[in-house]
Amino acid sequence: MSRFLAPRLASLEAYVPGEQPREMQYVKLNTNESPYPPCPAVERAVSTAAVRRLNLYPDPAGSELRRALAARYGLAAENVLLGNGSDEILNFAFTAFASPEKGAACPDISYGFYPVFAALHGLPLLEVPLKEDFTLCPGDYYGLDRLIVFANPNAPTGLSIRPEQVEDILRHNPDSVVVVDEAYVDFGAESCAKLVKQYDNLVVCMTFSKSRSMAGARLGFALAQPALIADLETIRCSTNPYNINSLTLAAGAAAIGQDEYYMENCRRVAQTRAYTKEQLDRRGFVTLPSLANFLFTSCPGLDGGELYRALKARGVLVRWWDKPRLRPFVRVTIGTPEQMNVFLAALDGIREER
Amino acid sequence: MSRFLAPRLASLEAYVPGEQPREMQYVKLNTNESPYPPCPAVERAVSTAAVRRLNLYPDPAGSELRRALAARYGLAAENVLLGNGSDEILNFAFTAFASPEKGAACPDISYGFYPVFAALHGLPLLEVPLKEDFTLCPGDYYGLDRLIVFANPNAPTGLSIRPEQVEDILRHNPDSVVVVDEAYVDFGAESCAKLVKQYDNLVVCMTFSKSRSMAGARLGFALAQPALIADLETIRCSTNPYNINSLTLAAGAAAIGQDEYYMENCRRVAQTRAYTKEQLDRRGFVTLPSLANFLFTSCPGLDGGELYRALKARGVLVRWWDKPRLRPFVRVTIGTPEQMNVFLAALDGIREER
Repeated sequence: MSRFLAPRLASLEAYVPGEQPREMQYVKLNTNESPYPPCPAVERAVSTAAVRRLNLYPDPAGSELRRALAARYGLAAENVLLGNGSDEILNFAFTAFASPEKGAACPDISYGFYPVFAALHGLPLLEVPLKEDFTLCPGDYYGLDRLIVFANPNAPTGLSIRPEQVEDILRHNPDSVVVVDEAYVDFGAESCAKLVKQYDNLVVCMTFSKSRSMAGARLGFALAQPALIADLETIRCSTNPYNINSLTLAAGAAAIGQDEYYMENCRRVAQTRAYTKEQLDRRGFVTLPSLANFLFTSCPGLDGGELYRALKARGVLVRWWDKPRLRPFVRVTIGTPEQMNVFLAALDGIREER
Repeated sequence: MSRFLAPRLASLEAYVPGEQPREMQYVKLNTNESPYPPCPAVERAVSTAAVRRLNLYPDPAGSELRRALAARYGLAAENVLLGNGSDEILNFAFTAFASPEKGAACPDISYGFYPVFAALHGLPLLEVPLKEDFTLCPGDYYGLDRLIVFANPNAPTGLSIRPEQVEDILRHNPDSVVVVDEAYVDFGAESCAKLVKQYDNLVVCMTFSKSRSMAGARLGFALAQPALIADLETIRCSTNPYNINSLTLAAGAAAIGQDEYYMENCRRVAQTRAYTKEQLDRRGFVTLPSLANFLFTSCPGLDGGELYRALKARGVLVRWWDKPRLRPFVRVTIGTPEQMNVFLAALDGIREER
């Protein structure tokens, strides 16, 4: 820390993303990436001709991609905001819709970035405990009178609530914005995008990083009523109006045009998830019923940290958090069936050794 | 504006970038893009293989590119921060190094985004008037005791100060951070990058958008001592740790490896600038001596707004601001010699008509 840092930021602890090792080959099941590549239409969109035009700025309005996303979700372009990944959009929402007087609320166990955004903006954060079984109870969110943010499906649990339950939260917080972070929704949960027309306090946040195989391209989007999108646009254009690069805009539009390819990949991930869970059940693991592209699982008698380290030593990266309630578990991304068999074989090797 | 927007943001006016028309063909001399494409090494770096790996997250540390930039500027990787364009870095600096108690300072005529950042963060902004001839006087910046930001060369004037004059400002503000925005430095001015080792309060901010023909890829960087970079990294990782996409990281590293190509392009732009200024002089225009890739010029007897509209009607886009002191002028990006001849012919046509 330099002597120049604003004092209010002195205790700010940045978000720590999962390991992204560059040198050694791991079976990488730690950051919830898709195991499948982008479709050929995306390869064609990122053409040599497009690279030759990089001397020109991108379209700051992202009009073509916003139109494509609007059509995909049965909405209008004015309902769509584009972000440099959905993290950027979440940050915009914390900027626009929370005040230091009222603050924000999120589940006590959820995406680890929410508390970082709250700290960055000096917002008191109400962390609402999940139930003992890690489920989210809508009643715990009634009348909170502050910005509410949760992931659905939740991370790292993979558990989800139904749109009717989200509506219950929306109706009991008519004067607060509710952000539903649907980063993992395409792997089996039901989206709240269809509720956007009905609720003026709903922001649905999605990403191309998971189901659409574009984590490396950085693209997220929000769906909401035009007034909320306009506010988020004000923040976007007051921080970085050219926030999405030309190649990612082109890749995103091409990907939306090939939606069937990506939704088929999601079905494959869901099958592999069912297979992996069954294999873990057979081995005596306790695994939550996930609708995301990862499993949250614990091995009786083996601490999550020990399991994480033993797997890493065998070339398999998973994620583990040294935090109350999370310690017994590891979060395992669903890769290809072949990758999951390597993971399962590594588990067997670890158990044999003990 | 929705009823949910935080009241402190109710009067926030976003930055308005120059027009980026998608449909009609213009000779586009309005947003200071390079008229030359990226080098072939950049085309190769954005390969089909790289697109196929977009399912994986980028390196959040940007290590390879930071090492390449450090080597280019005679510094270490710890002296380098990467941004999604330099706008993002400027926003990080306003976040990290200014407080609502002390605020920030910038020239009254400069990059129009500085006042937007100040408003976004609720910072009082001291706008220091440039002299009558649009030059910046270092003495006006002595002991300001707040974050200081200026562009060098300045925009939209193109005028610059010498590193010794920047040092004068640095020495007279030992307890404040001074950000020197060198977006246009490669077209003829002298960089303050060499001062980074000496001054712990200096941040030099640069971009790939202008001299390196990558406006569409979104890439900026800052050079500073490690303690300042660490603070900016804390802000970066508290907003968007994966802020640079994989293809831009690869393109940036490839571009730095071909520096001679880009510096030769800068020399061509400087030649075209000299030619254009001479042609404007002959036509009786008043043009400031620019060291950037644009000219700030006015036509006696013709308002800047009129000139802007008349040029647009003839298919040439330039930039004009409806603001005191700026109104008589237009800012004209230096394109290829062919583009500048179209611009000059359009001027002649406009004058003939009158």
